Amino acid sequence: MREGRFSAAESEIAQRYSESVSFDRRLYRHDIAGSIAYASALASAGILSADEFEMIARGLREIENQITAGTFVWDASLEDVHMNIEAALTKRIGLAGAKLHTGRSRNDQIALDLRLFTRDEIDQIVARLRALQDALLLLAQKYSEVLMPGYTHLQRAQPTYFAHYLLAQLEALERDHERLRDTRRRADVMPLGSGALAGSTIALDREGIAKVLGFQRVTQNSIDAVSDRDFVGDFLYSLAMIGIHLSRFSEDLIIWSTSEFGFIEFSDAFATGSSLMPQKKNPDMAELTRGKCGRLIGNLVSLLTILKGLPSSYNRDLQEDKEALFDSVDTVRSALELFSAMLPELTINRERMESLANDPQLLATDLAEYLVGKGVSFREAHTIVGKLAASGKQLDALSNDEFRAASNAFEEDVREVFDVRKALQRRTATGSPSPENIERQIARWRELLEPE
Amino acid sequence: MREGRFSAAESEIAQRYSESVSFDRRLYRHDIAGSIAYASALASAGILSADEFEMIARGLREIENQITAGTFVWDASLEDVHMNIEAALTKRIGLAGAKLHTGRSRNDQIALDLRLFTRDEIDQIVARLRALQDALLLLAQKYSEVLMPGYTHLQRAQPTYFAHYLLAQLEALERDHERLRDTRRRADVMPLGSGALAGSTIALDREGIAKVLGFQRVTQNSIDAVSDRDFVGDFLYSLAMIGIHLSRFSEDLIIWSTSEFGFIEFSDAFATGSSLMPQKKNPDMAELTRGKCGRLIGNLVSLLTILKGLPSSYNRDLQEDKEALFDSVDTVRSALELFSAMLPELTINRERMESLANDPQLLATDLAEYLVGKGVSFREAHTIVGKLAASGKQLDALSNDEFRAASNAFEEDVREVFDVRKALQRRTATGSPSPENIERQIARWRELLEPE
Amino acid sequence: MREGRFSAAESEIAQRYSESVSFDRRLYRHDIAGSIAYASALASAGILSADEFEMIARGLREIENQITAGTFVWDASLEDVHMNIEAALTKRIGLAGAKLHTGRSRNDQIALDLRLFTRDEIDQIVARLRALQDALLLLAQKYSEVLMPGYTHLQRAQPTYFAHYLLAQLEALERDHERLRDTRRRADVMPLGSGALAGSTIALDREGIAKVLGFQRVTQNSIDAVSDRDFVGDFLYSLAMIGIHLSRFSEDLIIWSTSEFGFIEFSDAFATGSSLMPQKKNPDMAELTRGKCGRLIGNLVSLLTILKGLPSSYNRDLQEDKEALFDSVDTVRSALELFSAMLPELTINRERMESLANDPQLLATDLAEYLVGKGVSFREAHTIVGKLAASGKQLDALSNDEFRAASNAFEEDVREVFDVRKALQRRTATGSPSPENIERQIARWRELLEPE
Amino acid sequence: MREGRFSAAESEIAQRYSESVSFDRRLYRHDIAGSIAYASALASAGILSADEFEMIARGLREIENQITAGTFVWDASLEDVHMNIEAALTKRIGLAGAKLHTGRSRNDQIALDLRLFTRDEIDQIVARLRALQDALLLLAQKYSEVLMPGYTHLQRAQPTYFAHYLLAQLEALERDHERLRDTRRRADVMPLGSGALAGSTIALDREGIAKVLGFQRVTQNSIDAVSDRDFVGDFLYSLAMIGIHLSRFSEDLIIWSTSEFGFIEFSDAFATGSSLMPQKKNPDMAELTRGKCGRLIGNLVSLLTILKGLPSSYNRDLQEDKEALFDSVDTVRSALELFSAMLPELTINRERMESLANDPQLLATDLAEYLVGKGVSFREAHTIVGKLAASGKQLDALSNDEFRAASNAFEEDVREVFDVRKALQRRTATGSPSPENIERQIARWRELLEPE
Repeated sequence: MREGRFSAAESEIAQRYSESVSFDRRLYRHDIAGSIAYASALASAGILSADEFEMIARGLREIENQITAGTFVWDASLEDVHMNIEAALTKRIGLAGAKLHTGRSRNDQIALDLRLFTRDEIDQIVARLRALQDALLLLAQKYSEVLMPGYTHLQRAQPTYFAHYLLAQLEALERDHERLRDTRRRADVMPLGSGALAGSTIALDREGIAKVLGFQRVTQNSIDAVSDRDFVGDFLYSLAMIGIHLSRFSEDLIIWSTSEFGFIEFSDAFATGSSLMPQKKNPDMAELTRGKCGRLIGNLVSLLTILKGLPSSYNRDLQEDKEALFDSVDTVRSALELFSAMLPELTINRERMESLANDPQLLATDLAEYLVGKGVSFREAHTIVGKLAASGKQLDALSNDEFRAASNAFEEDVREVFDVRKALQRRTATGSPSPENIERQIARWRELLEPE
Repeated sequence: MREGRFSAAESEIAQRYSESVSFDRRLYRHDIAGSIAYASALASAGILSADEFEMIARGLREIENQITAGTFVWDASLEDVHMNIEAALTKRIGLAGAKLHTGRSRNDQIALDLRLFTRDEIDQIVARLRALQDALLLLAQKYSEVLMPGYTHLQRAQPTYFAHYLLAQLEALERDHERLRDTRRRADVMPLGSGALAGSTIALDREGIAKVLGFQRVTQNSIDAVSDRDFVGDFLYSLAMIGIHLSRFSEDLIIWSTSEFGFIEFSDAFATGSSLMPQKKNPDMAELTRGKCGRLIGNLVSLLTILKGLPSSYNRDLQEDKEALFDSVDTVRSALELFSAMLPELTINRERMESLANDPQLLATDLAEYLVGKGVSFREAHTIVGKLAASGKQLDALSNDEFRAASNAFEEDVREVFDVRKALQRRTATGSPSPENIERQIARWRELLEPE
Repeated sequence: MREGRFSAAESEIAQRYSESVSFDRRLYRHDIAGSIAYASALASAGILSADEFEMIARGLREIENQITAGTFVWDASLEDVHMNIEAALTKRIGLAGAKLHTGRSRNDQIALDLRLFTRDEIDQIVARLRALQDALLLLAQKYSEVLMPGYTHLQRAQPTYFAHYLLAQLEALERDHERLRDTRRRADVMPLGSGALAGSTIALDREGIAKVLGFQRVTQNSIDAVSDRDFVGDFLYSLAMIGIHLSRFSEDLIIWSTSEFGFIEFSDAFATGSSLMPQKKNPDMAELTRGKCGRLIGNLVSLLTILKGLPSSYNRDLQEDKEALFDSVDTVRSALELFSAMLPELTINRERMESLANDPQLLATDLAEYLVGKGVSFREAHTIVGKLAASGKQLDALSNDEFRAASNAFEEDVREVFDVRKALQRRTATGSPSPENIERQIARWRELLEPE
Repeated sequence: MREGRFSAAESEIAQRYSESVSFDRRLYRHDIAGSIAYASALASAGILSADEFEMIARGLREIENQITAGTFVWDASLEDVHMNIEAALTKRIGLAGAKLHTGRSRNDQIALDLRLFTRDEIDQIVARLRALQDALLLLAQKYSEVLMPGYTHLQRAQPTYFAHYLLAQLEALERDHERLRDTRRRADVMPLGSGALAGSTIALDREGIAKVLGFQRVTQNSIDAVSDRDFVGDFLYSLAMIGIHLSRFSEDLIIWSTSEFGFIEFSDAFATGSSLMPQKKNPDMAELTRGKCGRLIGNLVSLLTILKGLPSSYNRDLQEDKEALFDSVDTVRSALELFSAMLPELTINRERMESLANDPQLLATDLAEYLVGKGVSFREAHTIVGKLAASGKQLDALSNDEFRAASNAFEEDVREVFDVRKALQRRTATGSPSPENIERQIARWRELLEPE
């Protein structure tokens, strides 16, 4: 490729600095699929004979097999995955191979490869998201009647069901799913045939290539097609949001597995010990996941910063998009897999959870709402109950006289407020944790997660 | 609100540190709309009488008018927009006002306000995006026949049309549009009625509230509803991507307005001078836009970092989501407005652009493709032409002998390669810059941007 | 300033978009101090007469007083703080004012203002850091004998003193202090006289200006001087690190103030309630601080992204450096102030802390080290004690027979291991929490924090 | 390590998820140096006999040789570099090896390793910084008399020397150097002996360990010592700033190597071609460097986000600090090396640079300053010259009458203004580009960069 224009070889330092084959080789399947589709379009355009097309397709498939088998020899002096495969093809089949790049640039080629990769990886990650949602749903079903204290500001707030908490995680992951679907739709546009930035004089059937490769649309502007990394940004952002959801879940689990909270215990198979302290059992998997959220955000920042201020069309800076993308994909895949395996092994300390959920202070709001039912305005009720709550006594230990002293509106039936399960039954609005709602949501998710 | 539970007033330092009314007052319209809808649901649930509802609705509308008129007195000791409005209402209408917060928490209230704000601002920004696309389309129509050199790596690459470049910008903005639509869909879910995190014992018709406020769906899990800031992240990300597109456009304009490129000149109305150097005319608007991309990325990072590692449900850290959001919204709105006003005033130096577009070296690829047409393999053709290009002579100044010396495949008709407009006519694949394609794309956009 | 070169006024949209006076007015003191120093250098260079210099100096001081008093009228059409003050000066004193900008550019002027601002704000923040360190030291002195369980992975690990924890915070803040000192040193270089980028033909005594303004050095290259925002980056990074330290401290306090941990209670004056739940008392100040760390990181990212890929010398993008800087400065100042006020009001639940610190499992490592003293290798001892710890019995409740069954090395004196205070006395290496070390460290800090 | 406490093996998924040996093995030299120093302290403390110490030291050195030779077999089930080496040692020398970890935790061990690594890598990077500064200085010397147009806002501003530009780069790199020195000083503190977080009962001579390992100080608080990753942040920030400086330099070079600017040409050895366009020669090395700045900022964000909101002392999230650190170190090392090799090969197009530097418009400021010399106030002079500059004529082509029409202050000697080299001679203030100043700066740098 340098033969014509350049009088000197690339310096070894420059070669080492600029080669990408050490990481972009990961795209070989997509590169080869794209090349076969492209060759078929060249054949339709009369650039390749039917025989040449056959040779190319066969040659590329053999190379693919070699790479998969680990017997292909990569050469960093050939810069990237594209040139390595082209060179191997030409070496293998001669002249026909040297025709493959007609009207094509690495600019549209890499855009294609990355889009194919993105589509595939989204599908993989969606499958793992689904598996984690399944695991959460199973847990919610198993523990659908276990009470737990709900927290805001990490302070006990109101009683709820453990299943209610688990279903909240399902909701967040469902938004991740939706976001990935949107990203996939934006990635699902075929850029090949855009050339370096201005297409080519070859009469390519781009729509035909799109069909072969299963794309919904073709790009409509060749400058935009080689510039556009929006889909990489969208994907990195979607992955960072999954990371944030898992970091939140992890934070909860870490806190709940302290001796002080004591709500859960990780299985020995998903915990680690200390090299120094013999008694320790640590929630390392959750901590690592919380930490890995940092690299997902960092990878997103890398890409956005790379893109910022870049001129239009292809600039070599764009080569730097790949490692961030690969790293975020691998990180999220492994984190989802880990959680799906870890959750079913979790020990739930029902007794401890329910004992705290029965803290009568958690029904202070219900007590205020009881007063509202007796005609007291909510703000006044809030103040009355606030004073009682600060009195030092548990709310259900107050005597009738103490209640009456606080407000005449209190009557005998105030005692009924302190039955936690009844309190939950009253929470019937959509999304609230009445047992019926929990059941309804579990049923809704069972249907939603049914394999299509 | 502190009256019941707390024995001491909040310290002045803490108050100053934690108040949000200095910035969240911006949400007053949404807060009031939400409160009226909520009051109507309380009335349906029997918590408010019809009269009380009327008083509340009227009172809130009067407060809204006061705020809009600038006569409302905000009180930082009341913490936030919610408590300021509630206190003013109760002061104004008494008891009924004190009932408004029944079964509601600021946790679901702020979630509602932010979602209403996000929906509104997306609509505003979409309108400005459309206006900018209109301006670009007009420019593309006006200059549809102006040639320009296309660049990759900021090196002249191939000839194209200026309109082709402008249409590329339209494509990127269209993805922004799509992304905003996706974000809007995810924001369009009604959280009110989720209470602090576990709903309430009030039998609220949440679906009814959603209808009143024009929401498509209601949230399905109250813990998730008060935790969820995904839509803020989605919005900040979408805004950052708009920033990246504008920063790229700006970079192009800055470079093109140098004396050395000389493609465009900013109108005096959109340029600034130097306090020291009398001759200077600077592309400050484009530079500022490129710079503002930094804050858009920074704001996104702020939010993601705030969310990272937070436990579930509401935590006060979430208060920090708003300033980043407001700043990004304002930044993008003003940048879009600026570009829409600035573009029509741009002077295009057609002569300069076309003179560089006529550089015969830019047709080196066409020359190689010419050889392919004569049966030479592309790789070989690439090398042959590369050598010619490095010879020091312009490609169209080579003699027939020189061509023949390079390859026997060259024939008389090689001269036809060097007609730039003909070269562009050959670029007919979808997205490539043949004049027909440019026209087709302009027509497509004219239709797409037609007001519905 | 536009009068000569420009034929049209700046468009209103462009003016609104590009004005900075709405925020850079904050630099007026520094701008005026710089202008007075500059005028004195112009006088020495013979550009201004002694009278003119006096008029300028007096005029500027009067303007400063007006601004401080709030009676100065800012005009956005004059773009920035520099032009507003110059215009007011010229209006006030005529011709002499019009001479002030000789040989000066806003490029070196803003570089100077920002450096003066940075120096001042560092001094302010260092004072607040010191105040917080004082508060921590007082607490450490007050509670120097209170035991607490030390945690790793949020799991109880080993016993220590509460003071040991507090002293750890002092160490981190001391690094912040050091970092600010380094930043100040790098900011303490005088850029005025660099002009737009190439100095001027005026024979300025830049060293003299530096002396007047108290700078240690003058910049050595005028292109670099107008390009350089390293000191802003250094400052934003230093502030982000303070934010990270405070976010860590906050996370500890939030967890310790849960009912489940119960180690501390915030004063009512530094806690807030719930609008819905009457019983709630929330650690909002700590949560907000943890959240504000997000904006500090975001602001740093904004600046770094602005700088990335910018060409050399002054570009208008640099205007975007200021709001991030101001916001981070204000955020850190208020957070430090808040913590200094909040800490002395903290209630320490000594009984709860010590009861958990007495958990015999926390001495598992000491037990292993006991075995090491008896000749067992540490790895073997670790395994032996690990098994005992997993037995379900508290370590100090094991019978002699049970100990012997685990290892022959156990003798009668094993009981002595379980005296927590004695266990701590054995931790004598520098930095370890023996009571003597705690005292020594407290004394060291008392000296270090002594006002000079 | 799990043998005692855990009843089940770690699940394979968890092991894969949490192992770090695949990347932290890079620290083996530092880990082994630390272990030998630690063993010597254990010997002094009587925990190891002299023989045991000898066996350990010899064993570790043999393992180091194996690792260096590539014959060591790493085992992911042993989690990390520390456990791999400890296990190999114990296998090799038996009992003595099992004693090495007495009183040590991986928490203080990894803190030590990272500090040793940071110190070493800073030294490496400083050496490469110095080499790049040398290359820049050589270039400045070689081209010390070449004029170039100086730019602000990428618009031609004033004439200067190319050497002046190059010296500006030297200044920025010198700040990087200083920042690295500050970082090194903060990393140069010895943490070993802090144990898990509370030291140990072993009477360790920590100061002795520090001496052996060449540390200036020992950490003063064991909780802080295992929590602290400030030095990693400092290092990542310093590396990001180097990245920003190189990205700016790259942006300049990319723009200057366009055909339109034509100031420089990259050597063929440091440029690449196009797979499609035979005539292209692209500045890929500079583009990649500009892009790599993105990952350096991203890595910094990763770390800061990991640290944000983490509780005190060691949490497993901290494991995630390493890959970001390694990646930034490698990126900056290779970028510095690349630039040092690329710069001497750059072709400078002196003719083109000087021709543009001679543009008389660039002396508009000098013309205004000329008027100041004739008694005109600068603001008035600025307006007069601004009008002349906008007249469409080159400033030096104006007739005497035209000058007089603009201002009576113009005299015959106005022609002298337009001698560029004389104009530069007048720029004598420190940092300005008079030839004498350039020479003085070159001499200053020659001295500064002299190897000590």
